[in-house]
Amino acid sequence: MSFTPTPSALSFEPLSPLAFLDRSAAVFAERTAVVDGPRRFTYTEFHDRCRRLAGALAPLAKGRAVAVLAPNTHVMLEAHHGVPWAGSPLVTINTRLSAPEVRYILQHSGSAVLLQDPQFDDLVAKAIEGLPEPPVILRAGPGDGGGHERLLAAAEPTAVSVSDERALLAVNYTSGTTGRPKGVMYHHRGAYLQALAMVTHTQLIAASSYLWTLPMFHCNGWAFPWAVTAVGATHVCLPKVEASEIWKQIHAEHITHLCGAPAVLSMMLNAPEAGRDADGTIRFLTGGAPPSPTLLAAAEALRIDVTHLYGLTETFGPAVLCDWHPEWNALDAAEQSALRARQGVANIVGLAARVVDGEKDVPADGTTIGEIRLRGNNLMLGYFKDDAATAAAAPDGWFRTGDLGVRHPDGYIELRDRSKDVIISGGENITSIEVEQAILSHPAVLEAAVVGAPDERWGEVPVAYVVLRPDAIAAEQDIVDHVKSRIARFKAPKRVVFGELPRTSTGKIQKYLLREGASAASDDRSP
Amino acid sequence: MSFTPTPSALSFEPLSPLAFLDRSAAVFAERTAVVDGPRRFTYTEFHDRCRRLAGALAPLAKGRAVAVLAPNTHVMLEAHHGVPWAGSPLVTINTRLSAPEVRYILQHSGSAVLLQDPQFDDLVAKAIEGLPEPPVILRAGPGDGGGHERLLAAAEPTAVSVSDERALLAVNYTSGTTGRPKGVMYHHRGAYLQALAMVTHTQLIAASSYLWTLPMFHCNGWAFPWAVTAVGATHVCLPKVEASEIWKQIHAEHITHLCGAPAVLSMMLNAPEAGRDADGTIRFLTGGAPPSPTLLAAAEALRIDVTHLYGLTETFGPAVLCDWHPEWNALDAAEQSALRARQGVANIVGLAARVVDGEKDVPADGTTIGEIRLRGNNLMLGYFKDDAATAAAAPDGWFRTGDLGVRHPDGYIELRDRSKDVIISGGENITSIEVEQAILSHPAVLEAAVVGAPDERWGEVPVAYVVLRPDAIAAEQDIVDHVKSRIARFKAPKRVVFGELPRTSTGKIQKYLLREGASAASDDRSP
Repeated sequence: MSFTPTPSALSFEPLSPLAFLDRSAAVFAERTAVVDGPRRFTYTEFHDRCRRLAGALAPLAKGRAVAVLAPNTHVMLEAHHGVPWAGSPLVTINTRLSAPEVRYILQHSGSAVLLQDPQFDDLVAKAIEGLPEPPVILRAGPGDGGGHERLLAAAEPTAVSVSDERALLAVNYTSGTTGRPKGVMYHHRGAYLQALAMVTHTQLIAASSYLWTLPMFHCNGWAFPWAVTAVGATHVCLPKVEASEIWKQIHAEHITHLCGAPAVLSMMLNAPEAGRDADGTIRFLTGGAPPSPTLLAAAEALRIDVTHLYGLTETFGPAVLCDWHPEWNALDAAEQSALRARQGVANIVGLAARVVDGEKDVPADGTTIGEIRLRGNNLMLGYFKDDAATAAAAPDGWFRTGDLGVRHPDGYIELRDRSKDVIISGGENITSIEVEQAILSHPAVLEAAVVGAPDERWGEVPVAYVVLRPDAIAAEQDIVDHVKSRIARFKAPKRVVFGELPRTSTGKIQKYLLREGASAASDDRSP
Repeated sequence: MSFTPTPSALSFEPLSPLAFLDRSAAVFAERTAVVDGPRRFTYTEFHDRCRRLAGALAPLAKGRAVAVLAPNTHVMLEAHHGVPWAGSPLVTINTRLSAPEVRYILQHSGSAVLLQDPQFDDLVAKAIEGLPEPPVILRAGPGDGGGHERLLAAAEPTAVSVSDERALLAVNYTSGTTGRPKGVMYHHRGAYLQALAMVTHTQLIAASSYLWTLPMFHCNGWAFPWAVTAVGATHVCLPKVEASEIWKQIHAEHITHLCGAPAVLSMMLNAPEAGRDADGTIRFLTGGAPPSPTLLAAAEALRIDVTHLYGLTETFGPAVLCDWHPEWNALDAAEQSALRARQGVANIVGLAARVVDGEKDVPADGTTIGEIRLRGNNLMLGYFKDDAATAAAAPDGWFRTGDLGVRHPDGYIELRDRSKDVIISGGENITSIEVEQAILSHPAVLEAAVVGAPDERWGEVPVAYVVLRPDAIAAEQDIVDHVKSRIARFKAPKRVVFGELPRTSTGKIQKYLLREGASAASDDRSP
């Protein structure tokens, strides 16, 4: 060996989450890495498959991006390691997008290859129709006629080494509620650190089993493809998020950890199958909306510990979480619920999150509202091919989340609303979350969304859209009275509409549709 | 604010373990950070004290090193944050060194300030006598007449920011069994990652209480000054390592974690106070020698989980550890002990440890012996002011530990011996550890050390030095017979000497003294 001796050769190695799979293949060779239906792969096999996938992709992609359109299967997990090992950025595409949206992402990312589950044949056909430079299509998954396994078998195990830890690891497209989706650029260093943060905060260990309820196409599954791998725990795939399947896997694979929106937790807890037959705590990480006190109580009864977190695609997912104080366990259920509804503090690898009004950090008084701003190693490099958007998002290096919140006296942050969801009524700010929480505490209510509707007298008034529990009964006045008994009366909804809530392909409630509906209804009632 | 917007401002922050105290002061403000006898500091107070220490030191040190000579007190913990915040490298000095050794370290490190516990007044006076440029002496601790508290009260809270994550954080002097001690240079990035590795492998959480049995002057306490702080757990100081005091703190402060040599564990378990009155597991991390099966059984009976690890000053302490497979819990005690005696694998932030014979990695056969070599982010920058020694230690970027071991078929490394401790007898290699383990399994034996002695017929033969348990009785032949019943007969000691074992100031058994004694005895027996 002729290797120039330098201090950095001894003590510097680029941080990359791919190193975790190398380590676990060496340390936990025979342990089960992945369970996907009847298929089970050890860490040796998982490592080998990812290396072979890299070998198959490298000559096709030649460093250009590789897109993946698949549910939470072993192929998707393998892509999280095999694509970067091929020397390509990974582009996971939301499987609920329309063909024009998929087409836009393929074009914008310049993806040379699309790895797709055969269940999306039609979507892919439409998306690439007439594309000037269509990607190479690799079908992988049930229905591929064994093509993917043959591809792997024929490939040379490969791993392009990572020489720059801030090199591009993945491009994750935002859901794009307004305008075109933006490509959020992830780097190796950020993913490595975020994975260690997830290990630390969720106490992942080798004995853990992680159930894949959270789509991996969201923020690379909050870094769990690498975090679970890092400790040699077991990934349990879940192609479809259904309560009966979740409970089946919890029992069969002794699940210890899972992630998802409160709606997933609600679905689990309200299912007829809900029940535990094993000791030990299950850790459920939830983001997107605060878990309601009702939901928290139901979770606790089944020994499911809920951690509330907050983040965006731009922050590798959970940049902020409600870091629990052991002393809080002594508080009563209502106090615990109130604490757990807060988004919290920057995670262990993050920089302190700020709440800024104009140019100033708001006082920690629990009432002054400001914008949440974030910065640090678990932030994106920027938007792919969009320097103007990057500069606009972080003009001074602090990322503008666009989300509004307060800082409590103990430093914990609580979101009050997305900027556009503040309802201003009679000069008073009403945050829809607060009203939603009050409605959700009614025993008959399963889900609730509150929006502002125009009102001649007050400017805006809150209107509630409510889904009742199966077989539960409640009238509009019951809901209004209940809210008035819990929060300021002027915050009570002026109207309550019962029925299903419209959702985006990513499961977010489409409040703009509700606003349109509420606005139209207001017009009808106008004199 | 006029801040140039760059992607790195958004997504790059130098890694430094000092960030953990900033975070915990913000997140766990009112939690107890430090317990030291009757004194208790919250995280707010701990943070403020460290910042004030930095403010007091900065104008005195002006970027030069600050040395500390203190037992495991709150002052020592504060120095681990306050000295780097002052913009100075930290030099913790082994309190068991002689005045000339302390003098050498002060001079070599160019320390501008020496922070010392008053119990070392005499040692310091001798060490600095006639020094051309003696450091500023700051007395801190019981007996300082309140001087240290006044110094902190008068100081401005200060924190010099870390702009280069590979900047010098600390210089830790090796114990120097041969030649002058060498100054091992630690960097911020390495300490940050090593601290996260300790959190991960020991499952430190906010509810943990860490007892300071391991001297902080060893490898900065294996990064635990930062790791315990990172999760908002409680440091419990222990100025003197005595069994009764350890058990008192375990009960009083609900200790969950501690570290030390097997001798510390042995002392604990053999004390009359040994006993648990609380549920839950205590995690004990041990290095320096493999814990014997007898010790492991006694630990398990008290629900003390022992993790065996390996490292050197050059590797920030535990670079390698016996990462436990959940499946091993099903094995019988003897099998578990054998597995736990292995040093193991690189920790979660380390690069794969190598075992090299000449230029080749040895086969993973559990028998071929090679040298352990390490590399990665948790390795030193090099030796302070000694480029030649740095180059010699890592001529190709891989650090030569000088320790010999084998790689088992599952990839786990087991040390066979320090290079110089291999006993070659009749052409066969005998590793002293193996013989020591066999002797230690005799119920009458408390401690054992085996060295080679010259022998006309065999070249060398093993000679054992044995300390019996209090009131236990065993004759030379009992020990020899016992060893022959457990390992190859040629490995049995030819002589057994009963009595105390000579130790260095750091507690290492001085085998060279034993070798000298054994050699002299051989000469006496020569015809």
